[in-house]
Amino acid sequence: MPDIPKYKLASREWKPEKTIIDVKGCQIGGDEIFLIAGPCAVESEAQIDEIASYISQLGIKFLRGGAFKPRTSPYNFQGLQQEGLDLLRQMSNQYNLGVITEVMDLSLLDTVYPYTDIIQIGSRNMKNYHLLKEIGKTDKPIMLKRGMDATIEEWLLAAEYILLGGNDQVILCERGIRTFDTSSRNTLDIAGIALAKQLSHLPVISDPSQATGSRDLIKSASLASIAGGADGLMIEVHNDPKKALSDGPQSLYLDQLKDMLPALAKVSKAVDKTCSWKNKHEIVNV
Amino acid sequence: MPDIPKYKLASREWKPEKTIIDVKGCQIGGDEIFLIAGPCAVESEAQIDEIASYISQLGIKFLRGGAFKPRTSPYNFQGLQQEGLDLLRQMSNQYNLGVITEVMDLSLLDTVYPYTDIIQIGSRNMKNYHLLKEIGKTDKPIMLKRGMDATIEEWLLAAEYILLGGNDQVILCERGIRTFDTSSRNTLDIAGIALAKQLSHLPVISDPSQATGSRDLIKSASLASIAGGADGLMIEVHNDPKKALSDGPQSLYLDQLKDMLPALAKVSKAVDKTCSWKNKHEIVNV
Amino acid sequence: MPDIPKYKLASREWKPEKTIIDVKGCQIGGDEIFLIAGPCAVESEAQIDEIASYISQLGIKFLRGGAFKPRTSPYNFQGLQQEGLDLLRQMSNQYNLGVITEVMDLSLLDTVYPYTDIIQIGSRNMKNYHLLKEIGKTDKPIMLKRGMDATIEEWLLAAEYILLGGNDQVILCERGIRTFDTSSRNTLDIAGIALAKQLSHLPVISDPSQATGSRDLIKSASLASIAGGADGLMIEVHNDPKKALSDGPQSLYLDQLKDMLPALAKVSKAVDKTCSWKNKHEIVNV
Amino acid sequence: MPDIPKYKLASREWKPEKTIIDVKGCQIGGDEIFLIAGPCAVESEAQIDEIASYISQLGIKFLRGGAFKPRTSPYNFQGLQQEGLDLLRQMSNQYNLGVITEVMDLSLLDTVYPYTDIIQIGSRNMKNYHLLKEIGKTDKPIMLKRGMDATIEEWLLAAEYILLGGNDQVILCERGIRTFDTSSRNTLDIAGIALAKQLSHLPVISDPSQATGSRDLIKSASLASIAGGADGLMIEVHNDPKKALSDGPQSLYLDQLKDMLPALAKVSKAVDKTCSWKNKHEIVNV
Repeated sequence: MPDIPKYKLASREWKPEKTIIDVKGCQIGGDEIFLIAGPCAVESEAQIDEIASYISQLGIKFLRGGAFKPRTSPYNFQGLQQEGLDLLRQMSNQYNLGVITEVMDLSLLDTVYPYTDIIQIGSRNMKNYHLLKEIGKTDKPIMLKRGMDATIEEWLLAAEYILLGGNDQVILCERGIRTFDTSSRNTLDIAGIALAKQLSHLPVISDPSQATGSRDLIKSASLASIAGGADGLMIEVHNDPKKALSDGPQSLYLDQLKDMLPALAKVSKAVDKTCSWKNKHEIVNV
Repeated sequence: MPDIPKYKLASREWKPEKTIIDVKGCQIGGDEIFLIAGPCAVESEAQIDEIASYISQLGIKFLRGGAFKPRTSPYNFQGLQQEGLDLLRQMSNQYNLGVITEVMDLSLLDTVYPYTDIIQIGSRNMKNYHLLKEIGKTDKPIMLKRGMDATIEEWLLAAEYILLGGNDQVILCERGIRTFDTSSRNTLDIAGIALAKQLSHLPVISDPSQATGSRDLIKSASLASIAGGADGLMIEVHNDPKKALSDGPQSLYLDQLKDMLPALAKVSKAVDKTCSWKNKHEIVNV
Repeated sequence: MPDIPKYKLASREWKPEKTIIDVKGCQIGGDEIFLIAGPCAVESEAQIDEIASYISQLGIKFLRGGAFKPRTSPYNFQGLQQEGLDLLRQMSNQYNLGVITEVMDLSLLDTVYPYTDIIQIGSRNMKNYHLLKEIGKTDKPIMLKRGMDATIEEWLLAAEYILLGGNDQVILCERGIRTFDTSSRNTLDIAGIALAKQLSHLPVISDPSQATGSRDLIKSASLASIAGGADGLMIEVHNDPKKALSDGPQSLYLDQLKDMLPALAKVSKAVDKTCSWKNKHEIVNV
Repeated sequence: MPDIPKYKLASREWKPEKTIIDVKGCQIGGDEIFLIAGPCAVESEAQIDEIASYISQLGIKFLRGGAFKPRTSPYNFQGLQQEGLDLLRQMSNQYNLGVITEVMDLSLLDTVYPYTDIIQIGSRNMKNYHLLKEIGKTDKPIMLKRGMDATIEEWLLAAEYILLGGNDQVILCERGIRTFDTSSRNTLDIAGIALAKQLSHLPVISDPSQATGSRDLIKSASLASIAGGADGLMIEVHNDPKKALSDGPQSLYLDQLKDMLPALAKVSKAVDKTCSWKNKHEIVNV
């Protein structure tokens, strides 16, 4: 392997104390587990409203939803685009939710910027260094998903590109790597979360949906991520997964999300973390 | 991919209720987390005695230790062989510990059999079908490690070879798969544990030492494994890891093992499991 | 795995006869082996001039050279940028060479477009679908490198994005995939070249430099690629590899390039292909 | 990664000149391409006779055929066992063919030994170090297939185990490694062949059938292997692939084998190798 200079700004040597990011009333990287939920893509007002309403009643504070979608096939649904952004804004206002959505290409940054509280850089763009440099000049938190072919070192070097631009609010997101075993869509690198936390001061969250590709594995992967040291989770949920325009098989039913929160709270507590979502008895009527 | 007939005896369809294996006072696959600790290899009486004494005081009931070691290089330490087996027996008697050690080759089965309570089949032998068939005719529990290049389906098919021989006491052990990222020695397939539990009735334990290759990652990987549904853990520990003849970098110091037990107990409880090892206040003098 | 609609325009079913692309006097995808040589990055006038002069004397018709370089570390050389483009133009004029260079980001398309005869889309951008859509609206041939984590199907779907834009001049370039074995930088998927040729009508070339990461393996990988069905090769060569600002270890010395051409010619002929580069006796004085 | 002592006896430093193995009139590792053909498994006298007769008429000198078969599923055909060995002997006598067949387990060594000219160690046994040690005490050539999860270094260390036993007639066989891309069954590591040849003095052959898993890719993979430096090929062929009891999809039809020999001869010649099989005009009536 060619010699790669090491990251600096992203390292614990450079900054021993952990980075905590304040956004929309959440502190990411601190004692509280940060929870994001929502559909893969915004599909319609009815869809996103039902989901946003539901998760806000659970006490979840951040809504995810793709407006511009990177899809492996050009024949797949590519997102509602501007209409999707408008709907995310509307949900944010109506339910007081933070919003996270992806900037797929630098040319879309100005379009997406005003609508999102956290800018998501997708896995496919983790090595899009030109984009990383430019995004580093913005003033909003960035969630940098790990490329499915990226080593931990390459991931931290990608964060370095952003940090060098002056933006020090980077959240790392592990979402599974590509391996020979296709039993699950990707392989959640659970020790990679712990390793990234040791090497870097940046918060690290986990995406159990993208990692496993199967709703039956999301609860286990979520509990394991929290126990293993993740600062939060981004979970795909849909009001009608069987009819979802994308990623249906890895989207929880709304009820399943609610049902896993108590277990998630117990494991969070076991590793000395707190959580903002409601307890079982509080959400009985959702 | 060529068409592979599915496993039957190993499946949940064949046996919906989970298999619980009774051995030396432990119930593997039930409510209690099963804990194995010990060195990669038995190196000397002084070494194994110090380790066995220590773990027994922690309330850990099973000792691991290799007597015949499969090593990538012929120039590496190959194990104490018969002397190693004798020492394992001695420790078992002295500290009332169950023993697990590996049968590296069918020709060694008769030699190893009397000395071990659980027969370990190593990763490199997971696809040694001739060995699996023969081992299936024995009457002791078998711990079948996942091959580092094996899919979940291939792993369960390997278990099927053993089950077909008549031995229904198979414990699966996830120990990391081989991927492009060498930041950790292997990649612990945490969702694979959950998936194996869903597809099969057999107990599944996790080997965080072999999976991560680094003692700094073992605690996180252990907590994640339990939270993710593992029925137990096999952890490498050494009285002097820096001088270990094999796998030193992935062996915990004795103190580190003790120090992680309370966290392990808390996470076990959070997922409604019990544990046999002692609580913090009980082990203060170890 | 989620269901992915298949590519259409890129398939042999859609277009049974092979696509042949005419550019700067070369026919890519036909009977003649297409050869590109040059440094990883344009570093200075002296460097690129020495290389360009040399390869043109060998009868090689296309010069590669990065002006904007995607680098894993922000602390690595990022390319001469506009100056690099100017130098490529100068070499093209001086030595009558075709030029291929990369468009790293959509925002750089207008900048790079006038300077290149073939637009290179790098591995890291193979899944940058927004870029692929826009590049599909241009009228120059596109060389689409395979992502190091991309299946053959995903690669052809990426080509489909370009073809759907109206640009039917797509050249596929296999450059190695990422696997557990780091003996070579990547693993050249030689059967993937043959498979892509069977599934698609598009030309497929091979990049033995990026695939192997080692100059000692380039000749073997080149011969194998041609014998295995590749329509051409893109080879890194440098006038002083030990001082190269990037990818030195995988760059041939100028002499090594010359020395492998006769063998390349013999293998090309053995698989009924022709070649444009000069024979041994013609290049004795280079 | 833990530190692994390097191989010695297998290295070029130890023995700069290449090892050439003489067996049944073939010289493996010299100027002549060594060709093995035959079915995955011996299935019946009629089957093996038709195949053996055919390949001997083509001038191919070695017959492969499994008698004891390692199969991923216990419900798959496990081989004719002793009857298979008897049939291999019969074919050998009748058509003057060398025989290569696998020793799946040490307990089968004495059974298989008298029937085979080259002892095959399968991929799944490449890390079965106990077996390698014992096989190193025999006096017949050993063909050591690369494990599908083995690095080049681990492969050479496995050879070292055999060489240390005193048997210096080891033939390496690359048969594809396991990667994320399942478009082909495995990924033929073509540069790995070249690298193994550079690092070691041992002959290296290629198994394009196991590597690709698809008969449509075998010709390309074979030509590429020879051009890339392989000393020979082991090719699966069947008189009726659609009815083959194992590996049908990756078995050539008899005619396909014949039809690819002329191309194979041309590429062999292009890389200065000779071949023993017959030319086109000689085999017109086969």
